[in-house]
Amino acid sequence: MREIVVFSGSAHPTFADSICDHLGVPRSYVDLKRFSNDCLQAQLLANCRQRDVFLVQPLVPPTQDHLMELLLMIDAARGASAERITAVIPYFAYARSDKKDASRISIGGKLVADLLATAGADRVITMALHAPQVHGFFSMPVDHLTAIGVLADHFRASGDLADSVVVSPDFGNAKTATQFARLLGLPVAAGSKKRISDEKVVIDTIVGDVDGKRAIVLDDEISTGGSVVELLDRLGERGCTSADIACTHGLFVGRAVERLSAHPLVGHVVTTDTVPRPPDWPALQVRSVSALFAEAIARIHAGESVSSLFDGVDPSHAPPQATLPLG
Amino acid sequence: MREIVVFSGSAHPTFADSICDHLGVPRSYVDLKRFSNDCLQAQLLANCRQRDVFLVQPLVPPTQDHLMELLLMIDAARGASAERITAVIPYFAYARSDKKDASRISIGGKLVADLLATAGADRVITMALHAPQVHGFFSMPVDHLTAIGVLADHFRASGDLADSVVVSPDFGNAKTATQFARLLGLPVAAGSKKRISDEKVVIDTIVGDVDGKRAIVLDDEISTGGSVVELLDRLGERGCTSADIACTHGLFVGRAVERLSAHPLVGHVVTTDTVPRPPDWPALQVRSVSALFAEAIARIHAGESVSSLFDGVDPSHAPPQATLPLG
Amino acid sequence: MREIVVFSGSAHPTFADSICDHLGVPRSYVDLKRFSNDCLQAQLLANCRQRDVFLVQPLVPPTQDHLMELLLMIDAARGASAERITAVIPYFAYARSDKKDASRISIGGKLVADLLATAGADRVITMALHAPQVHGFFSMPVDHLTAIGVLADHFRASGDLADSVVVSPDFGNAKTATQFARLLGLPVAAGSKKRISDEKVVIDTIVGDVDGKRAIVLDDEISTGGSVVELLDRLGERGCTSADIACTHGLFVGRAVERLSAHPLVGHVVTTDTVPRPPDWPALQVRSVSALFAEAIARIHAGESVSSLFDGVDPSHAPPQATLPLG
Amino acid sequence: MREIVVFSGSAHPTFADSICDHLGVPRSYVDLKRFSNDCLQAQLLANCRQRDVFLVQPLVPPTQDHLMELLLMIDAARGASAERITAVIPYFAYARSDKKDASRISIGGKLVADLLATAGADRVITMALHAPQVHGFFSMPVDHLTAIGVLADHFRASGDLADSVVVSPDFGNAKTATQFARLLGLPVAAGSKKRISDEKVVIDTIVGDVDGKRAIVLDDEISTGGSVVELLDRLGERGCTSADIACTHGLFVGRAVERLSAHPLVGHVVTTDTVPRPPDWPALQVRSVSALFAEAIARIHAGESVSSLFDGVDPSHAPPQATLPLG
Amino acid sequence: MREIVVFSGSAHPTFADSICDHLGVPRSYVDLKRFSNDCLQAQLLANCRQRDVFLVQPLVPPTQDHLMELLLMIDAARGASAERITAVIPYFAYARSDKKDASRISIGGKLVADLLATAGADRVITMALHAPQVHGFFSMPVDHLTAIGVLADHFRASGDLADSVVVSPDFGNAKTATQFARLLGLPVAAGSKKRISDEKVVIDTIVGDVDGKRAIVLDDEISTGGSVVELLDRLGERGCTSADIACTHGLFVGRAVERLSAHPLVGHVVTTDTVPRPPDWPALQVRSVSALFAEAIARIHAGESVSSLFDGVDPSHAPPQATLPLG
Amino acid sequence: MREIVVFSGSAHPTFADSICDHLGVPRSYVDLKRFSNDCLQAQLLANCRQRDVFLVQPLVPPTQDHLMELLLMIDAARGASAERITAVIPYFAYARSDKKDASRISIGGKLVADLLATAGADRVITMALHAPQVHGFFSMPVDHLTAIGVLADHFRASGDLADSVVVSPDFGNAKTATQFARLLGLPVAAGSKKRISDEKVVIDTIVGDVDGKRAIVLDDEISTGGSVVELLDRLGERGCTSADIACTHGLFVGRAVERLSAHPLVGHVVTTDTVPRPPDWPALQVRSVSALFAEAIARIHAGESVSSLFDGVDPSHAPPQATLPLG
Repeated sequence: MREIVVFSGSAHPTFADSICDHLGVPRSYVDLKRFSNDCLQAQLLANCRQRDVFLVQPLVPPTQDHLMELLLMIDAARGASAERITAVIPYFAYARSDKKDASRISIGGKLVADLLATAGADRVITMALHAPQVHGFFSMPVDHLTAIGVLADHFRASGDLADSVVVSPDFGNAKTATQFARLLGLPVAAGSKKRISDEKVVIDTIVGDVDGKRAIVLDDEISTGGSVVELLDRLGERGCTSADIACTHGLFVGRAVERLSAHPLVGHVVTTDTVPRPPDWPALQVRSVSALFAEAIARIHAGESVSSLFDGVDPSHAPPQATLPLG
Repeated sequence: MREIVVFSGSAHPTFADSICDHLGVPRSYVDLKRFSNDCLQAQLLANCRQRDVFLVQPLVPPTQDHLMELLLMIDAARGASAERITAVIPYFAYARSDKKDASRISIGGKLVADLLATAGADRVITMALHAPQVHGFFSMPVDHLTAIGVLADHFRASGDLADSVVVSPDFGNAKTATQFARLLGLPVAAGSKKRISDEKVVIDTIVGDVDGKRAIVLDDEISTGGSVVELLDRLGERGCTSADIACTHGLFVGRAVERLSAHPLVGHVVTTDTVPRPPDWPALQVRSVSALFAEAIARIHAGESVSSLFDGVDPSHAPPQATLPLG
Repeated sequence: MREIVVFSGSAHPTFADSICDHLGVPRSYVDLKRFSNDCLQAQLLANCRQRDVFLVQPLVPPTQDHLMELLLMIDAARGASAERITAVIPYFAYARSDKKDASRISIGGKLVADLLATAGADRVITMALHAPQVHGFFSMPVDHLTAIGVLADHFRASGDLADSVVVSPDFGNAKTATQFARLLGLPVAAGSKKRISDEKVVIDTIVGDVDGKRAIVLDDEISTGGSVVELLDRLGERGCTSADIACTHGLFVGRAVERLSAHPLVGHVVTTDTVPRPPDWPALQVRSVSALFAEAIARIHAGESVSSLFDGVDPSHAPPQATLPLG
Repeated sequence: MREIVVFSGSAHPTFADSICDHLGVPRSYVDLKRFSNDCLQAQLLANCRQRDVFLVQPLVPPTQDHLMELLLMIDAARGASAERITAVIPYFAYARSDKKDASRISIGGKLVADLLATAGADRVITMALHAPQVHGFFSMPVDHLTAIGVLADHFRASGDLADSVVVSPDFGNAKTATQFARLLGLPVAAGSKKRISDEKVVIDTIVGDVDGKRAIVLDDEISTGGSVVELLDRLGERGCTSADIACTHGLFVGRAVERLSAHPLVGHVVTTDTVPRPPDWPALQVRSVSALFAEAIARIHAGESVSSLFDGVDPSHAPPQATLPLG
Repeated sequence: MREIVVFSGSAHPTFADSICDHLGVPRSYVDLKRFSNDCLQAQLLANCRQRDVFLVQPLVPPTQDHLMELLLMIDAARGASAERITAVIPYFAYARSDKKDASRISIGGKLVADLLATAGADRVITMALHAPQVHGFFSMPVDHLTAIGVLADHFRASGDLADSVVVSPDFGNAKTATQFARLLGLPVAAGSKKRISDEKVVIDTIVGDVDGKRAIVLDDEISTGGSVVELLDRLGERGCTSADIACTHGLFVGRAVERLSAHPLVGHVVTTDTVPRPPDWPALQVRSVSALFAEAIARIHAGESVSSLFDGVDPSHAPPQATLPLG
Repeated sequence: MREIVVFSGSAHPTFADSICDHLGVPRSYVDLKRFSNDCLQAQLLANCRQRDVFLVQPLVPPTQDHLMELLLMIDAARGASAERITAVIPYFAYARSDKKDASRISIGGKLVADLLATAGADRVITMALHAPQVHGFFSMPVDHLTAIGVLADHFRASGDLADSVVVSPDFGNAKTATQFARLLGLPVAAGSKKRISDEKVVIDTIVGDVDGKRAIVLDDEISTGGSVVELLDRLGERGCTSADIACTHGLFVGRAVERLSAHPLVGHVVTTDTVPRPPDWPALQVRSVSALFAEAIARIHAGESVSSLFDGVDPSHAPPQATLPLG
């Protein structure tokens, strides 16, 4: 296959630039137009014929505009005879719409996966899908990356981990928290949710010992920060002395910055650059995962294993070991 | 098939209500949610099983949000076992992206037609597509309605047509203008565009006699009003005494209201309700096409001819006449 | 649509008979042949033209043979011009293969969903999928039933619930356990799993108070019974006085019957008839869900809501309430 | 479903008329245009909405024009919202291109089956496919009719069958010949082909006793008549006294009429009306199968069994008998 | 990808030969058979495995036979494991069937685009589609070439252009005529059509100054020549002194040769070799576009830009210029 | 494309090893798991990215398990970004289910071909399909190999062929038998089947001279051996002195070994290794076709002709000869 060509939608061009720096290729440009009737149009400004085309676009707000930009760029790349089109979606927002938990409801995660295929995407690279089953919504190959190695490096580098404990806000995320804790050599605890009514869920208890400890709260995504703040309140009540917060997708919308900045228990907050950083929060620490995406792109292009990139980090990415032959 | 169920997205619910009034069925409701990460979700609040489901949504700004709402409603209706799902799109905005007039450009009209099919739409009802070829972008049946009968009725009812002439802003739209003129018993004229550069087009002349006459300008869609104003200037120079304006899709975005209200030549402006009327323009006359849509829906449901609804209006809708048998 | 026709594969014909009794229709027969090279063939022995065909087959061992029987029956029904083909799969075994938790691994749940569509199934009725996201693997409509109402009725009818507590083996299943507990007016507890190594997981603690209480353990599926026995051991250590066990899919393969029959804490064990009951375990109590399936089939055929069948049981099945109209 | 609507292409309108007479419905007309660049266009002159549309067209020469007419009519019916589109193809000429008997060769039978599906056909009714496996080329339901009952009636009605023998030109067709012989209470014989070279095959012997007998030669299709004439020569050498000829599809192209009319052994020749009769051959006896097609259409429309229409004629069409239930 | 292999159907093999000469590859042969029942069969006589296969066939009369040949060749190439199959269709005749301008009518352009995809074509190269929207009918990439550069070269080389004017027969084609005029440095005029009745359209006037000038009439396709002759009559009435005629697709069927040869105003007529030249018209000048097709094929094979081939000719083919980066 | 990677399911790993030996590549391993609910899972233990992946699995009993293993391996390879996935199915058991010879019956051969495509197979290599039309059931390219060259080599090497005759059990297989006889320079004879009832068929006569000769019986597949034994009885009655037996697929299930070993006429029996050899039959001679499969794989990988591999063996595989050019 011919060389790599990387384009970016308008959602997060600095992330695409960072990937390109690591790859050592220039970013190719896209002319995105908005007509007076609010329709969008994409024109790719570099030759795509038989190229290995990568289109970078996290689905951050305004989510629908960014999704449509991505679909139009895929359509344009297909029409321009790209050899292979990979949608690089660091943050796949619709993953949270993953089940039919009410009657006659849309399953947005499955729908968007189908729309990407219809537009002409051949594969997807993404990170930290909200539920691992969402992988199965895609009919095309998906490279599903993890940021927990990068986040663990941050904490290992930032000093003393004595008397610390990893805390998961709920048990759905506990498997990832356990891997993270193993990387740091720490114990793990988790919030336990209680269903007040069909509509309302509260965190009513903490499973595991947190008394007198520094908590490292790990979540996949923080948007308004509501449930993290509730967890912090419980941690305070249980004798926790301070809490650092780590998450892969740091949207921090609504009153999230204010709430987390102001909480007495909170130490530092660390996230990645899968989404643009919120303005006016200098204390937020952002660790880049662009090198991981660049390395994945390079391996995909070269036909090398991506899973081995995460060996030692996430057991699900460890390259399978040869066992005894059949027969 | 079981009864008709009509839902509306958030783009233009009063139009859906008006359709429902004509049909004599209640409008069924949709719970549309926007999550904190800006993802949308649709839940249909009425039983869809084996029903003939109609989802009303013109693609007006914010276009991408309205498109995604429509796709999610279609997805929900399919998951809820609707017998047949018809997307009622009075204004299909992406029809203007209908060709590859530059290299490596998206063809949004074709893409959106494919997305609707992927989500699960079985058919489409729309009005006044920008180019008739867009019909062929859809793999599903399309009922393509016309408003020129309604607009002609307006002018016939509004008094003296003596010394009037129908004017088309360009020759691409001239066939429709000719039908419209025939309905009014009037002559037709048209603006002729001159290409200044590859980027810029101006109307430099008027073909046909307009001197001393009242013009009735007919266009399919007016958004910023730029080219209509240019046409009006030419008409004034050619001795036109006044100009009424008629269009199917009256978006009137940007400075359109101001420009058209202020133009010395403009008499009254008439449009339809395929899109919501602009606020603060009481002089705008809006003729409803909801009865046409309701009649089309009723005929589709009953298995009756829709084309005969436009017999006498648009020759392309006249029911074909039996000719001599083959053989 | 014409009348209902119900066929059964060889996996569980008495369940199909029971459905037919409730529906008041005779079961139609299938001639299933196995050729000398082990290939299977299905011939449907009743007219399918324009009928509403239901094919009943839980995916119990030998799972591959039962799956292939189902695919061949679907293929035959399609070739015989069935109007609509519904695969009734009370136990969808491959739902457990729902994610890519290792490199280069098959996702069997998605694959089987696709195979059913390829063979020609138009819809699926199933019960208690292992993860709710598996619903999204299907491109066709799925009616996803729940047995917790039937199981709750059993315990309500079987006497005193004082000093009882519902226990979920893990937190993944906790939402369902909470609904079940609500139906019985009981508190809920759950086992907490600890990861010993990447390969091995043990239940090391119980969240919630079980001391001196009778436990009602609820799980979606019991096959070899290993993790339930481990949970019982922890419950015993925590002072639990006895434990009844409830599950939807009671496969009880391997040493499950022996293990559970012999455990000192176990009172009675109740399951449903989504799969054939194990031989030689007279103490096992089986509550039939065939009436639920029959009612769902009747409602699907008549175009009535299926979700309202579970109103008051499972909030996700409650018919959505009309809210204020848009606009 | 709404009423039946029957259209005919230009290949064989009298056959469609005959079907319509049996059904008691008028034939609806099609306006077929040929443009100056030789492109075809079809316009259906009757309402198709929610109708059960049947399009009658055998693939006789000019085969490609008749195929394209059929595809265009299907496309028009789909665009006109037909509820169900059935291609009635009494003679599916491309069935003979059914295998890859040379390198890099097209398989026309499979291709045409796929083209029909792409155009929008929902089902096919055809008769006497050259090989039964061709049925499997279609992804849609196929009703595969047989004419041997009609042909057998002809011979039973035409007098004395004493000293007659049914003869198949080759062994590939022998199963059908055996059924035909059983209907007439006659013995069966067959020509045996010898491969002279890779290119050339001759009939070198007759298996079965024909000496002193009247032969009734049965073939599925006769085009140039070459192999039938060769068979007749062998029959003459073996002492056959006379030969009647029966075939389903009587194309009789090239020198077929001359060759068969002139052969000393030939008595009468009988065929059906799946294709138009050749001009200038008054002696040819044509038995109509239009009643069979009409009955099949009526049963398909009414949802009744088509196979039982051939019970007693062709064992493969006998309705399967209920056997003991499973389990 | 492996080397280029070029095959030709029977429509225009000398054009394929000419392409092969430019490419420096031998033309590979196809064995096209017509069976006695008029069915066609294609056998490709060169290895296609992993080759970049190009199949050359303009859709000239007999159009249906040539279309079927092309579909069968595509099918054979797919079955023979071609890496990529490109249908090279210099003249896509069905492009004129591009809209539903009457009820229940087929849209042949869309249907044929779908048939090509079903047979297995991966991409299409064509020239001068009747309407640019037809591009959107194809789900595969299309390289849409233009002949106006070649035609302009012809006129620049043929002498004095003083007092000349480019004339478009109608306004639908005016954009192309304007580009053509710009290449020649000439003004542009156009015929204006008047609708006499719903069925009949006449050219009743000429927009632009033609008095005393030599006209260069440009059209995309001339078949019977009727509307060109009508245009010539109007040009004569307006004082035009002579008229040369240029078109991309010179079918010249029916009485076209006679009509155009005999017209007093006509000077020379120039066309391209997208279709075979009519016999017995030595005065017709044919400029070859085979070098353009060969260059496009070579660039497609090499992964180079095709649009830059037309830079300076057609603005829609100009390579897009890099603009300022996003963000 | 990158290098070849070969995996094997559990059906016949020694055959895959033998292919790998010929190719000089190591066999890559698969971890095939069977869960306690009898579901299967496949994990590929070697990198597949951009590799040319071959999955070897004949469909021998337990056929359904082996089919599901194959589908899961294909699914895993697709998810692991294989460049091309070829299912190598030396014995495609479902080929015998190739027609609808009774009402409402499944066509298993077509269904399994579709399932393979759904799972993600790009092509198939197989040998000796029961009917050549089955090739047309596959929508993907199929390389259809033949073993008759290998079997003929065996007999040529094993000594005197004087007074031998090749015998086909029926006329359906006669074309292959004739090719085989040509390779050995022998005459050919065939059994003729008589239909006793609709259910029962017996071989009642032998066409061709076998008196005093040694028969070489050739069949594509022997499972229980019933019809071969019946043929042997007839051969004995006709004066045959001995009979050797050759078949491509030697399943030898049920009482086949016993029956054939014990028959007085039988000399030696030779088969290939497309399926595992039956245990406890040392006299069975097995000629390997693994070199043929390896050569086909190597040629497919290298883009060379596979048909020329069988030139001189099977005329349908002879590379087509260039003929005179068109035009």
